[in-house]
Parts: sequence; structure tokens; C-alpha cells
Amino acid sequence: MHRYRSHTCGELRETHAGETVRLSGWVHRVRDHGGVLFIDLRDHYGLTQVVADPDSPAFKVAETVRAEWCIKIDGFVKKRTPETVNPNLPTGAVELFATEIEVLSAAKELPLPVFGEPDYPEDIRLKYRFLDLRRESLHANIVKRTKIIAAMRRRMEMIGFTEYTTPILTASSPEGARDFLVPSRIHPGKFYALPQAPQQFKQLLMMAGFDRYFQIAPCFRDEDPRADRLPGEFYQLDLEMSFVTQEDVWNTMEPVLRGIFEEFAEGKPVTQNFRRIPYDTAIRTYGSDKPDLRNPIEMQEVSEHFAGSGFKVFARMLESDPKAQVWAIPARTGGSRAFCDRMNSWAQQQGQPGLGYIFWRTENDALEGAGPVAKNIGPERTEAIRLQLGLEEGDAVFFVAGDPKKFYKFAGDARTRVGTDLNLVDTNRFELCWIVDFPFYEWDEEAKALDFAHNPFSMPQGGIDALNSQDPLTIKAYQYDAVCNGFEIASGSIRNQLPETMIKAFELVGRSREDVETNFGGLYRAFQYGAPPHGGMAAGVDRIVMLLCGAQNLREITLFPMNQQAQDLLMGAPSEATPKQLRELSIRLNLPN
Amino acid sequence: MHRYRSHTCGELRETHAGETVRLSGWVHRVRDHGGVLFIDLRDHYGLTQVVADPDSPAFKVAETVRAEWCIKIDGFVKKRTPETVNPNLPTGAVELFATEIEVLSAAKELPLPVFGEPDYPEDIRLKYRFLDLRRESLHANIVKRTKIIAAMRRRMEMIGFTEYTTPILTASSPEGARDFLVPSRIHPGKFYALPQAPQQFKQLLMMAGFDRYFQIAPCFRDEDPRADRLPGEFYQLDLEMSFVTQEDVWNTMEPVLRGIFEEFAEGKPVTQNFRRIPYDTAIRTYGSDKPDLRNPIEMQEVSEHFAGSGFKVFARMLESDPKAQVWAIPARTGGSRAFCDRMNSWAQQQGQPGLGYIFWRTENDALEGAGPVAKNIGPERTEAIRLQLGLEEGDAVFFVAGDPKKFYKFAGDARTRVGTDLNLVDTNRFELCWIVDFPFYEWDEEAKALDFAHNPFSMPQGGIDALNSQDPLTIKAYQYDAVCNGFEIASGSIRNQLPETMIKAFELVGRSREDVETNFGGLYRAFQYGAPPHGGMAAGVDRIVMLLCGAQNLREITLFPMNQQAQDLLMGAPSEATPKQLRELSIRLNLPN
Repeated sequence: MHRYRSHTCGELRETHAGETVRLSGWVHRVRDHGGVLFIDLRDHYGLTQVVADPDSPAFKVAETVRAEWCIKIDGFVKKRTPETVNPNLPTGAVELFATEIEVLSAAKELPLPVFGEPDYPEDIRLKYRFLDLRRESLHANIVKRTKIIAAMRRRMEMIGFTEYTTPILTASSPEGARDFLVPSRIHPGKFYALPQAPQQFKQLLMMAGFDRYFQIAPCFRDEDPRADRLPGEFYQLDLEMSFVTQEDVWNTMEPVLRGIFEEFAEGKPVTQNFRRIPYDTAIRTYGSDKPDLRNPIEMQEVSEHFAGSGFKVFARMLESDPKAQVWAIPARTGGSRAFCDRMNSWAQQQGQPGLGYIFWRTENDALEGAGPVAKNIGPERTEAIRLQLGLEEGDAVFFVAGDPKKFYKFAGDARTRVGTDLNLVDTNRFELCWIVDFPFYEWDEEAKALDFAHNPFSMPQGGIDALNSQDPLTIKAYQYDAVCNGFEIASGSIRNQLPETMIKAFELVGRSREDVETNFGGLYRAFQYGAPPHGGMAAGVDRIVMLLCGAQNLREITLFPMNQQAQDLLMGAPSEATPKQLRELSIRLNLPN
Repeated sequence: MHRYRSHTCGELRETHAGETVRLSGWVHRVRDHGGVLFIDLRDHYGLTQVVADPDSPAFKVAETVRAEWCIKIDGFVKKRTPETVNPNLPTGAVELFATEIEVLSAAKELPLPVFGEPDYPEDIRLKYRFLDLRRESLHANIVKRTKIIAAMRRRMEMIGFTEYTTPILTASSPEGARDFLVPSRIHPGKFYALPQAPQQFKQLLMMAGFDRYFQIAPCFRDEDPRADRLPGEFYQLDLEMSFVTQEDVWNTMEPVLRGIFEEFAEGKPVTQNFRRIPYDTAIRTYGSDKPDLRNPIEMQEVSEHFAGSGFKVFARMLESDPKAQVWAIPARTGGSRAFCDRMNSWAQQQGQPGLGYIFWRTENDALEGAGPVAKNIGPERTEAIRLQLGLEEGDAVFFVAGDPKKFYKFAGDARTRVGTDLNLVDTNRFELCWIVDFPFYEWDEEAKALDFAHNPFSMPQGGIDALNSQDPLTIKAYQYDAVCNGFEIASGSIRNQLPETMIKAFELVGRSREDVETNFGGLYRAFQYGAPPHGGMAAGVDRIVMLLCGAQNLREITLFPMNQQAQDLLMGAPSEATPKQLRELSIRLNLPN
């Protein structure tokens, strides 16, 4: 027989009854039932119930074992009696009668329990991550994560993509977030950087004539702690294609994303055809470029009903500011004063002056729009609003007014709040869409200057002609996101592979040709030598896994995460370097006093 | 029709004749045959011959295109005449008659040619890597590399392994090579390290109850430039298993390694059953722990034939030093004075006093051992040596004498030299074996102290009893390598998961319990809580790819390698950091004067 096991702890069935077997695993739980010991033995594959009765030569050892000891058990398999069968356990039809137990490795008193999974302080969980990971829910999340990543690879390869690995020790790329730097020992005073994303390398791969690249790529950004991002590294399903339009990228990746979600959604419905929503429409309709489409609320502009109306705050606003608009957030089933007042208080907590509303009720057998706004604008305008939004008795509507640029985020939050509070959001599904036609530039209020809205490497719609002749703020980019349930899960674009268009695009944000040559030398040089049209995207692996695991925290889907202070409590990182190491790297510390 | 292509450049066949198609790709070559232009259009998938005759509306553009321009061609497919069919080209049965050509992106004058693949200076190739990678041989190597890695993943998953990704920003691990350090911005004065290997993490995964781990793992070692290792990063097929003996690891991984080699060997024979050769035997027989088994030469000890013989140098050595031995390197077909003298000169170039030899010839119808050694030891001993080694007329033997510890490497080199010079090595095959039973400790001559011979985390054979009672230099480890054609391609061991055995093992090399707790805290702590017996190995991806591509240089199988001075000439790394970056990282430069 094998030194450690003939079967795993998830393997024994009724058909094994009568066999002599050997299992190894961890003591999940020990129970004493009137002198007979029951040990739940656990390994990666499952759980088997072991019985040691006082007659068994194994009993003496069985009495000594404690939770999480690693042990080996010899015994014979017995069918359980019908009333003791456990249908929830794959091995629940049998139990193992122990004849011999060998302790492979005992455990000290546990700093956190594995059985039962109570909440436990995070610093203990991270310091003893090897115990934390034995817990059922975390173990299952990690296994699911690995399966999702394997499925991404399988699906990408199936449709003709090849995984190419790009360098991790590379050059600092002066765009986006802060780089992690790595001092060079051989070149004193110089530094490598860890890649924020393989953006330039994947574009260089297209220049090099490889056609369909993908990579499960580690990315590194030295950002300040944020709730929705772990410090240090994260993973992208990164891809790039040559000789494509943006429709090709969508048509290629939509089945992959849908397939991944369907494969791991455990039966929850997944969007079959992703809507392609222009950025401007998304902002107008959902107040967000990552709308949660499970929320059925769609906002509409209702300015005309307030222009010249008796609701003076809005009427004056519309008169004095040509940018001003009034947006309506329809709230089906929200038609009670209590709910409307609750929303109004919430808006005040958000720093808003309040939230105008109308709600419809039946008064004296007639439908009536109630509330101060309705009173001020009168029944005709109130009815026109109701008809435009298709509302009925028992419904309400909330209004946000001003410059949409300044209020759309708040309007989006209000839409979310209304949908959630009224239970209009079907949380049991995955709603996916594309957000397309992102603006190429944006106005940086602080710097009073034009800046790239997103990716400076994207192709502006209209190309160099648009750059030469159009108001920059009206130029769209061939740039798109994939969004699921209110989260951006992927982002991509058709790239600007024409060197002169690239120079012009940078010129408009005040960056010179020399600047581009210095900072993006590798890529800019490559564009000079027959660059194919190309585009792609990158999907956030961690975010997709979180959605599919229903996890609220990245640490619930990551093997060995750092804490929010960017420390690895298990391995003790970061830590001090020795004087010899610093000397070799030609650096010294420059500590704050 | 699609904006850029209806087919790839590797797709058109006779069955497409008559169709109107669109291709995009690079101009591989343009030839002018009596006024008709032939353009070889290339993409990732293949090459198609395009014809533009002076009547075609495409002719005018065709005249302007140059090598490596990226173009789009519309045209119709025509069967070639039988005498112009090119059987070496998958698309060789047809050609495309161009009706329209669009230049997608022109190319400046090329700094290195893509067509024809002449040798070119390495710095130009690395700076213009995107062009270098378009060259046929390098492109093919990179594609083969990706296929080998995909096959590794597929084979590992097929046998129940799961790929877990371990952290890249982690703790410095004070064993082995030099770490790359990453200054922490949030924790001034502290540093992360990039992993030299995921050794501790994969062991922690076993402690956490995951059973069969693998990873195509990036590893980082800040080593001085070496011909056989690229600066910076390299990749391992890393794996670990719980509840296993070393035989389990061999039996699991031998089919994977054999399978990978067979899949990509292009018909060359691959060893079916890997021999398991103890380290001591390998040293004695091949003078190396990574023997090239394609070389049939096996060395033997022949001390007895020299003890008390007339060959005084060896006889005195054997008499005065109990460690002294004489080893014989049989050299079939090497039986000429010319060859023996050549070997002797080679040995002198290696700093040796020379290389004693005997060669056998027929003199007066009798077989005679010739040369000074034979003369000194006389015909009887000469004949005894011949019989022991099974040599015949036309063969030779070389002798190396002294303390085997000091001469075995030279003996191994001589064995290689003899095998290569006499063409005894069948270079057209892959010979694989396991080298097992490595010594656990070695004597460090310089430090005059005991040290770990290889991996301090390995389990010593005999466990703590052996550590307590045995001469440390006689203790073997459950440690093994896989070797192919003279290269170590994998290395592994059964780990020491028993905390007290680990402490004892470190004690013997003079390292205290506190030292272990400080430096290997995460792992040592994990061992206290029910550690399963476990073991594994790591295979060198780059080395395996090199062997299977027949490449001599790592840069021929790596996408974006650094040069030997650890510089990325394409991206310009390493480079200077800004004063702001240094300030944020709480470091300053400490440049040599």
C-alpha cells in the first residue's frame, strides 16, 4: 500500500465497502459519542468520517489527536446504516473504521479555528494565512479562482490566441499610476520598473507580426491603499489583435466573457447580447460610465417641463445657464411621502441641498401628483412629466438640476439608491454591456488644460483630421469598457499606430515630439517600421473572480494578499535591507526625520 | 468585406481559385520579373505570392512599396500553372492578382533586414527587437516556446494539478542568490523582494491543504552576467505535491517531461524509461551530476592495476594517499597515437600535467597496448585493463589519478571531449535521466565549515536520527535532478516538514533556532500546525525550450531579453529615477566616486 494514502478523503463510496484503505489528511473535527470517537478527516478533495471504537487498536492514538493535526489512518470501509447516511457529503454513504492511526505532524494550539468559520480579525488571518486558507469558503474561492483563470486560458486558446509572456523587470513608463522601482546593481543610480500593464509590450508584439496575443498578466501599481484594490500586484486577462476594428474586438471577446460568466455563474442568468451603449448615453441615462443594468431605472431629461414653470429654483437655473438641465429619476413603487422624504434626507447627507420629487397617489378617486414640486409647477406639467416617464399611481420621480457635468455622478448615485431601496434591482443575475465612444480628451479643471481622458495610445475617431480641425473636447476615441453589474471589468481600444497622429495627439495636451520620443521611445520607434492597425483590451481577473464568487473583499479571493498597509504579515514584507545590500545597489536610506 | 482581411496570408489554397479576397500583411520581398511585380506578402500565419502586372490598377502603388511596409491588398485568386507551383509553401498552389493596394503604414529604411536572416550585431537586434522578431527563425522559436508552455499547462492539468499564482512582491529570502529589492514607499526604509523561486509559497500551499500545485512561475535573481542565464527573470515549471514519496514525484513527472519532449522533438528519439542514477554513481561514471547520456562512455576505477605497478607516478600516489584512485576513460575507436597526443595536449591546456593513455594496435599479428603507460605497467596489467573495459584493437583509454573529489570534473570534461572528438555522441536524440540521492551537506573548503550542499529545505534521508548520529558528510537527501543531454532541466526534493528536524539540520551548519525563526518565519510557523509530508520539483522552462528549439543562446528563445549587461535596449531600462520618485521612496543615490 502507498506510504500515505490509497484514496483521497473525497473518494470513498458504497462500492468501496469491505475494502482496506489508507487515508491521510487533517483532523477537521473529533466527536465523542458515548465512548466511540468520530473523526472527520479532511483533505483538498473532501471529508470522510472515521470511527474509532474502544476495541480498535487505533483508539489510543485517536484519543490524543486534536483539530488540524495531520494524520494517516488505516482502516476498512463500512456502509453506513440508512439512518446515518449523510446525503450532503459525497462520502456520506460510508465510514472508515480505523485500525491504525499515525500522527504525521501534530499542531500547536490554533490561533484561529478552521472548523466553523467564525469571523476572525484580519491581521490574525493574514499572519496565519496557511490556516485561514484551510477554511472551507476561502479554500473554495481560491479553487474557483484557479478554475476561472484556466477557463480564460482555454477559451482564448480555442479562438486562436497565443499566450506570450512579457517582461516584469522593465522600463518605467511615465503614464498613469506610480511605478514600483527596482534599483539596478550593475548600473549604479539606475532603476528598472515593474510594469503597470504590458501595454507597450503587447503593442510591440503586434509590430513584431504576432497576431492574436493574450496573457494572464501580473500588473504592478504603487498606489495608496484603496478598498477596491489590493496593494502591489493584480492580474489582467490582457489581449491584443492585429488588423481589427473595434467591432472585431467586441465580437471576439463578448463570447469569451459571456462564456466565463455562464460557466461559473452557478445558474444565474447572464446577458446574452451585450448592449453597446455610447459613453454620453450612459452618463445621461445612468449617471455613470459603469451602469448597473440590473437596476431598471433609466433617467430622462425633463428640462422643458420646468422651463418657465412655477418651480422657480429650476426655472431660473434653466434661464440663466445654457448648460443647465433637469434630469428625472423615475422611481416605480416609490410613491409615498415617507420614501420621498427618506431620499431627500439621504441627498442632504450627500451634501446636496435636497432632492425635489413628485409622487402619485389617488385622491378623491383621481390620480394626483403630490409634493411641493407638483404644487409649484401645476397639474398640467406634472401630468406631462408622468406621461413622459410612463409612471403610475404609487410611483415617484426625483429631480436633479444644474450643469450635468457637475451633477451626473450624484444623479447616478441617487438612481442606485432608489433602485436598491425599492428592491428594483435583481441581484441574482449578471448584466453585461459595452460602454463605447469614450471622449478622447477631457478638460483638467485644476491644471486648466486639456488632458487625455483615458488611454493616450488610443486612436481618435476621425484620425489626424479630427485632431487638426475638431474641438478636441468633442473628439471620441475608439475606446470601450466592458461593464458587469456596475463594475468595469474590462477596458480597451483601437490603438493609434500612426506616428504622426500620435505626435499630434500628444501636441494637443502640450507634449512635444521630443517628449514622446523620450518617454515612449520603444513604441514610437516601432511605429516607423510598418505598424499594423491593432487593438485589444484588458479584463480585470480579480474583479471578475470577485463577482463570480460573490465576494465583497479582494482578500477573500487572493491566496497571499497584503493587508491595507501594503504589508505581507505572513512572510514579513517589506523588511529592512542589510547595509551590504544597500551598498551593492548604490543607494542609501533617506528617512523622514 | 472586412476592413482589413478576408483571409490570412497562410490560408489560400487551390479551392479558393476565382474568389475575390482581401489580405493584409507585410511586404516580405518584391521582385520585378520583366515589368511584372511579385510581392511576397507575410503575416503571422504564412506567406502569399501577389502579382501586380502593369495593367492592374494596383500597379502604381505596387511600384512604391518596400520591404516591411504594412499593406492591404484586394485581388482575385488564380491557380498557378503546374511549373510555377511552389510545393514548399502551403499557399504555393495559388497566387493573388492584385486589383487594389492600400498602404496601411510605410516603413523607414530598415536598420536590420527581415528577409534572408543574415547574422546581425546583437545590440541592433535588441534595440529593434520588433523587427528582429519578424525574422522567420526567431518568430518560429517564440511560437514554439508558447506551445511548449501551453503543453506543460495542459499536461499538468490533465493529471490533476492546479495552477496557483504566488506573489511577486514579497519578502527577501536569505538563501541562495542575490535578491532584487523594491523600496516600499509606504514603509520608508523597508524593501520588498522579487522571489528567487516560489519555494516557500508552494510549501505554504501544501500547509494550507492544497494538494497538487503547479505554476509557470517567473523567478528573479540578481546575478552577475553568465552565458547560460539571462539577467533578470526566468521561468520555472514549478510544482509541489502532498502525501508523497520521491518515487511519486518521479512517477508523476517522468511522463510529463517525456511527453513534452516527444511532442516537440520533431521525431528525434526520447528516453522511454529514465534511469535513476545515484549522485555518487553519476560522479564516478560520468564525472558529472548532469551527465550527457548520449555519450556512451562510462568511466571505471582501475586503481588495482596501478597499485604497486611500474608506472611510478600513479603507484606512489595510491600508496601515499588513501583517498587516491585511478579512473579510466575508455575511448572506442580512439586508438591512434595522433588522437591520444591530441587529448594529452588538450589536458595540458586545461592546466593538467597531461593525460596518461594506452591504445591498442596489432603489431606482428598480435594485439599490443601501446604508449608510455603500457610500457611502464607491462603487458599483463595492460591486458587486465583492456579486459575490464572491454576494449579492442583500435581503441584507447585515458587515465586520471588523484583524489576523485578534486579530479572528477576534469575527468568528466575529458569524457565529453573524447566522446565528441570521436563522434561517439548521437546528437540526434534526447537522453533523459534522474540523478538521485544527492548529499545533504558539503564541506565548504573556503569557510572551513559544513554547509548545505543544495536545498536546506530538503528532508535528510534517515531523518533526525541521521542528523543526530551520522557523519554529516555521509547523509543523503531526498533530493533529485532531471537531466537531459548534459543539462540539468529540473531539480526537486521531498521537503523537511518537521520543525525539530529542520532546526537540527540548520544547527549542524551553525545556524540557531532564532536564525531559522527570523529568516524563515512564515514557513517555520506553518510547520507547527499539522504539516503534511510533501515534495516537488521545478523544471527550467527556458532550458527545455532551448533544447527543443536547438538554440544555443537564450536570446533566441526569449521575446524581449536584456543584453548581457542587464539592459533592455528596446525600452531603455534601467533608467534614471526622478528626484521626486527617490524622495517618495525615501532613498537617495550613493554613487561610487
